[in-house]
Amino acid sequence: MKLVVINPNSTRSMTDKIVASARAVAAPDTEVEGRTAHGAPASIEGHFDEVMSAAHLLREVQAARDADAIVVACFDDPAIGACREVATGPVIGICEAAVKAASMIATSFSIVTTLPRSVPVIEELVRKYGLDHQCRRVRSAAIPVLALEEPGSNARQQVRAEILRAIEEDRCEAVVLGCAGMSDLTEWLSAETGIPVIDGVTVATKLAEALVGAGLKTSKIGAYATPNQK
Amino acid sequence: MKLVVINPNSTRSMTDKIVASARAVAAPDTEVEGRTAHGAPASIEGHFDEVMSAAHLLREVQAARDADAIVVACFDDPAIGACREVATGPVIGICEAAVKAASMIATSFSIVTTLPRSVPVIEELVRKYGLDHQCRRVRSAAIPVLALEEPGSNARQQVRAEILRAIEEDRCEAVVLGCAGMSDLTEWLSAETGIPVIDGVTVATKLAEALVGAGLKTSKIGAYATPNQK
Amino acid sequence: MKLVVINPNSTRSMTDKIVASARAVAAPDTEVEGRTAHGAPASIEGHFDEVMSAAHLLREVQAARDADAIVVACFDDPAIGACREVATGPVIGICEAAVKAASMIATSFSIVTTLPRSVPVIEELVRKYGLDHQCRRVRSAAIPVLALEEPGSNARQQVRAEILRAIEEDRCEAVVLGCAGMSDLTEWLSAETGIPVIDGVTVATKLAEALVGAGLKTSKIGAYATPNQK
Amino acid sequence: MKLVVINPNSTRSMTDKIVASARAVAAPDTEVEGRTAHGAPASIEGHFDEVMSAAHLLREVQAARDADAIVVACFDDPAIGACREVATGPVIGICEAAVKAASMIATSFSIVTTLPRSVPVIEELVRKYGLDHQCRRVRSAAIPVLALEEPGSNARQQVRAEILRAIEEDRCEAVVLGCAGMSDLTEWLSAETGIPVIDGVTVATKLAEALVGAGLKTSKIGAYATPNQK
Amino acid sequence: MKLVVINPNSTRSMTDKIVASARAVAAPDTEVEGRTAHGAPASIEGHFDEVMSAAHLLREVQAARDADAIVVACFDDPAIGACREVATGPVIGICEAAVKAASMIATSFSIVTTLPRSVPVIEELVRKYGLDHQCRRVRSAAIPVLALEEPGSNARQQVRAEILRAIEEDRCEAVVLGCAGMSDLTEWLSAETGIPVIDGVTVATKLAEALVGAGLKTSKIGAYATPNQK
Amino acid sequence: MKLVVINPNSTRSMTDKIVASARAVAAPDTEVEGRTAHGAPASIEGHFDEVMSAAHLLREVQAARDADAIVVACFDDPAIGACREVATGPVIGICEAAVKAASMIATSFSIVTTLPRSVPVIEELVRKYGLDHQCRRVRSAAIPVLALEEPGSNARQQVRAEILRAIEEDRCEAVVLGCAGMSDLTEWLSAETGIPVIDGVTVATKLAEALVGAGLKTSKIGAYATPNQK
Repeated sequence: MKLVVINPNSTRSMTDKIVASARAVAAPDTEVEGRTAHGAPASIEGHFDEVMSAAHLLREVQAARDADAIVVACFDDPAIGACREVATGPVIGICEAAVKAASMIATSFSIVTTLPRSVPVIEELVRKYGLDHQCRRVRSAAIPVLALEEPGSNARQQVRAEILRAIEEDRCEAVVLGCAGMSDLTEWLSAETGIPVIDGVTVATKLAEALVGAGLKTSKIGAYATPNQK
Repeated sequence: MKLVVINPNSTRSMTDKIVASARAVAAPDTEVEGRTAHGAPASIEGHFDEVMSAAHLLREVQAARDADAIVVACFDDPAIGACREVATGPVIGICEAAVKAASMIATSFSIVTTLPRSVPVIEELVRKYGLDHQCRRVRSAAIPVLALEEPGSNARQQVRAEILRAIEEDRCEAVVLGCAGMSDLTEWLSAETGIPVIDGVTVATKLAEALVGAGLKTSKIGAYATPNQK
Repeated sequence: MKLVVINPNSTRSMTDKIVASARAVAAPDTEVEGRTAHGAPASIEGHFDEVMSAAHLLREVQAARDADAIVVACFDDPAIGACREVATGPVIGICEAAVKAASMIATSFSIVTTLPRSVPVIEELVRKYGLDHQCRRVRSAAIPVLALEEPGSNARQQVRAEILRAIEEDRCEAVVLGCAGMSDLTEWLSAETGIPVIDGVTVATKLAEALVGAGLKTSKIGAYATPNQK
Repeated sequence: MKLVVINPNSTRSMTDKIVASARAVAAPDTEVEGRTAHGAPASIEGHFDEVMSAAHLLREVQAARDADAIVVACFDDPAIGACREVATGPVIGICEAAVKAASMIATSFSIVTTLPRSVPVIEELVRKYGLDHQCRRVRSAAIPVLALEEPGSNARQQVRAEILRAIEEDRCEAVVLGCAGMSDLTEWLSAETGIPVIDGVTVATKLAEALVGAGLKTSKIGAYATPNQK
Repeated sequence: MKLVVINPNSTRSMTDKIVASARAVAAPDTEVEGRTAHGAPASIEGHFDEVMSAAHLLREVQAARDADAIVVACFDDPAIGACREVATGPVIGICEAAVKAASMIATSFSIVTTLPRSVPVIEELVRKYGLDHQCRRVRSAAIPVLALEEPGSNARQQVRAEILRAIEEDRCEAVVLGCAGMSDLTEWLSAETGIPVIDGVTVATKLAEALVGAGLKTSKIGAYATPNQK
Repeated sequence: MKLVVINPNSTRSMTDKIVASARAVAAPDTEVEGRTAHGAPASIEGHFDEVMSAAHLLREVQAARDADAIVVACFDDPAIGACREVATGPVIGICEAAVKAASMIATSFSIVTTLPRSVPVIEELVRKYGLDHQCRRVRSAAIPVLALEEPGSNARQQVRAEILRAIEEDRCEAVVLGCAGMSDLTEWLSAETGIPVIDGVTVATKLAEALVGAGLKTSKIGAYATPNQK
């Protein structure tokens, strides 16, 4: 199968990281193609960035017509409904993938994201997905998204510290990483903190394979029907 | 005060109708300016159209820098969070305005929208706003949005018939019109059906004045802070 | 239009303060009439006081037959359903007004009220209005209601301190004042704390004008129908 | 123990019926005292009647100082919070009693009340008690409360018919009678319809004995503390 | 009436304690019979222990055919649905009994259980019963269940300390003991802490009498019908 | 990887069917081992059957120590928590798998199960998983589980008819099959009805592979920790 992983921001190094995370777990017969939403903001930090990237993201979805499934690799799950209208195969956002996976391996979890302004955005998503009763708290490590791309930054240390605070204060049983840019830290963070650490890119890649393998496609008889011609 | 009412689709006749509805109820000292999201789809029927209109809508918000408040006149409440980041005064979506007003004059309401595919979109909004326990049902009159613009169509009769079904089947105490394009039908529908009929454009206009008059602005210390510079 | 603002307790100085707050924001063509529920307790601190004031409050509603809208100026929103049965125009409680306004300018808010015993009362109201997912916490400044009327008291300092605690501990984006007697402190508290501070009297006044201006009246075909004759 | 059962309306025949229902199930050592809220409306049909009866109800609570427990025998559970502030022993409303008992003997139930206007009042109570997920539907038999007191009326037939509709349409496992005035019909209705029929007066009487027997009193360290002296 | 109280674990001393608590409050004409689930684990600490005790528990229910009501005396409310299918009279779990009683005497409560691993189990139960909005927090005293059986242990001191923390940190109005093995500590803990302390065994005993006294049996027309013959 | 699929009832033909469904979609390098809960009831129709199968199911889990993941193939998701305590790899119930997959390809779904008595059991599961807002209705085709094993029965026609009713009455976008014994009908039903039909066995098989492929194991630091030794 062909899996297209789209980075809805325009930072190419983040696309590379995301694709590497997807390929690291993809099945042998899964072709992973990365796409970058050229023209989108360099990072998605809030609702405005989300909107400014959405049309670019959709253009990549439209270009990926031969995709069997699509992963949208931003933890805000931008424009997922629209992507589902346009695509025929399943479309998975990494927040939805991560929290639904977390809900099957733990009775509770906390989420650690980058900036404080993303916390309410994620809280609303978790409630939309019906998992607020399993989510102890959405936390911010107080770092800009792109700090995760800078080799010398102490961003990864701050994420680690915030996970340790989550373990102590939230009584959570797992931690979800709240940014696609953290996907290369998953193993290290899990080893450092001793708690299952869940990365959305990794999980969404496998869920996309799972839905395709189960023969499921997006339902086209309601909200996700192909867009109306004007 | 200056109120900017933005039609997020590109159909100018709908903008005119919306502005007329706003002006009909605006206070004497409120200047109502209508804006059309040129470049957006001709109507918003689903998530894809919403995304394709969002950036155009935001451009109008940015252009309306002297606005004291902004009304986004599409019942899907597209890109409201992003608009709130960009604007300084209050930004109000017509779905949120209508259902919150309905919740203060009735213990329950039903919503009548245009196309079936919009029903789940609106159901999700109502749940997001915390009013699913007061919303009996979201119904569709099974008409395209633009049919409301065609003088000869029987769209208005179908809306009327659906409201009568809502009264009989849903035991609701009020009906909310689920499309900006219905705003000129409000009085007629209320007279025909004998139930309070609530139009989002009308209510949002008055709520915008109310929030400005109360001295309230969008909070800028969290999710709605001005977008980060990249 | 004529707006009647009713203080459901019998403390005249509080009525004066409330009316002043309403008049400060009312439109030029809005006549604001204050009414005091003579015979009610001097302050409403809990369910018992609420009941002991309710019939007196209703008598004022009945006396205000020429009102286009009514504001009930106690944060417990006492007897709102009954007032809506009796009145023809909209009836707005200041808690409902304040939290619904807060929900449109911020993704989250905390409430600061007077006595600890009022905290569960308000928590129940917020849940009834469907906004518990946006309300971080209901807090008490641990002051009796009437302390707000005593010039020499340090009540206002305690309210200010509690708001600062809310900002630090609750990660809220706005603060709602949980007592009509705090309405004259709104501007000062907002300036002192740097967070949007929302006063129910102010907001309810403007919402009342908004609903009337939108042509909305309380639905009379269900729970809010005129009381049955016996 | 001494159990005081208060009819919050002023119809003496209803008090007699309620007391008979309570006595029919009370333990041998339980003294049941009936009290009528003289001065209250003849029946409670909506919020207004509720308010007009509340102070009279509270006066009866205050007069019943030697009561070990109190049952408030109106399905709208009027002024329960205030009664709990005033009394020292447990205070139980018949709606709360009935739905909590129903939730322990069935996975779902419907409620059959008198007038349509009471339906939303009861729906709100059920949600407040956290049992909306077990309540299939609140139904009205479309009869005035006092029709249940008239020997010749066909009110009981209408209640029976509505229960049969509930069984067929709601797939419920039990039916709760939504009016104290139906308490004498419980056995007959259960026999006629073949479904467990639950009467609030009966259940509240036994729950009151249960709480007293378990040594429980209303908590006085929060919302239900004794009313503040002014 | 005959009340059968079943200890779903195999520790006989705990059965004795439970039966003593039940007898201490049972009505004079209630015969209390204790049963131990021989073959079950010595204590129920988590889902596995629950399953390993369930069939043994059910065997005791089947053996108690002459019971008018059954209390299952483990705070995890194990296999209650199955017990209700098998029995004809009411079956009550002590968690459900305790939290529903708590919800009638206080606006909020916290629960103190034994081991941390039981906390999520109880949180899920409370949500299932629809009372999560009244439950401030489920806490663990960090003691094994059987420590409560050891005379020399300081388990009771730890429970007392945890209750004091609940009072200070949770702003709760009552405390529920989250383990049947704590039932003999109820009075002492209430005296020591000054807050209503609620024991599930005590309350379930009285609720069982109440349901029987009200003539209620488990509904047999749905989920709790007698098991199908194979 | 090795995937163990456990049929918690004792009907071997159903195990064969389930294993065939799993193998039909399993990855080439996934070894699927079927296990039957010998000693369990022949079918699971309600809570009692669930309990009577649970210990047998757990014994199979314990015997499957070399499993990388386990699927429990009964739509009631029996004893999942206990299985998660005992196993080290992920454990997935087919109801949870199916509804979480459905929630990613459609905005709403209905469930069609066998017997009416299973409807409330499944409704409670869906609510536990937080997806009640996406589940339109749980329906029964009014057939015993084992009728699906009888070649000559018209069970499959009844399932098909119920799906068609769901499409018409529930406005759902997908249908979930509410019994493991329906898994061989999935393709036929989807072709006959034109709506995405989701089978839990199929989806759980792929989700199990997905979680293992993503490197996730059940969290062992809370509710799912290995059972305590006694």
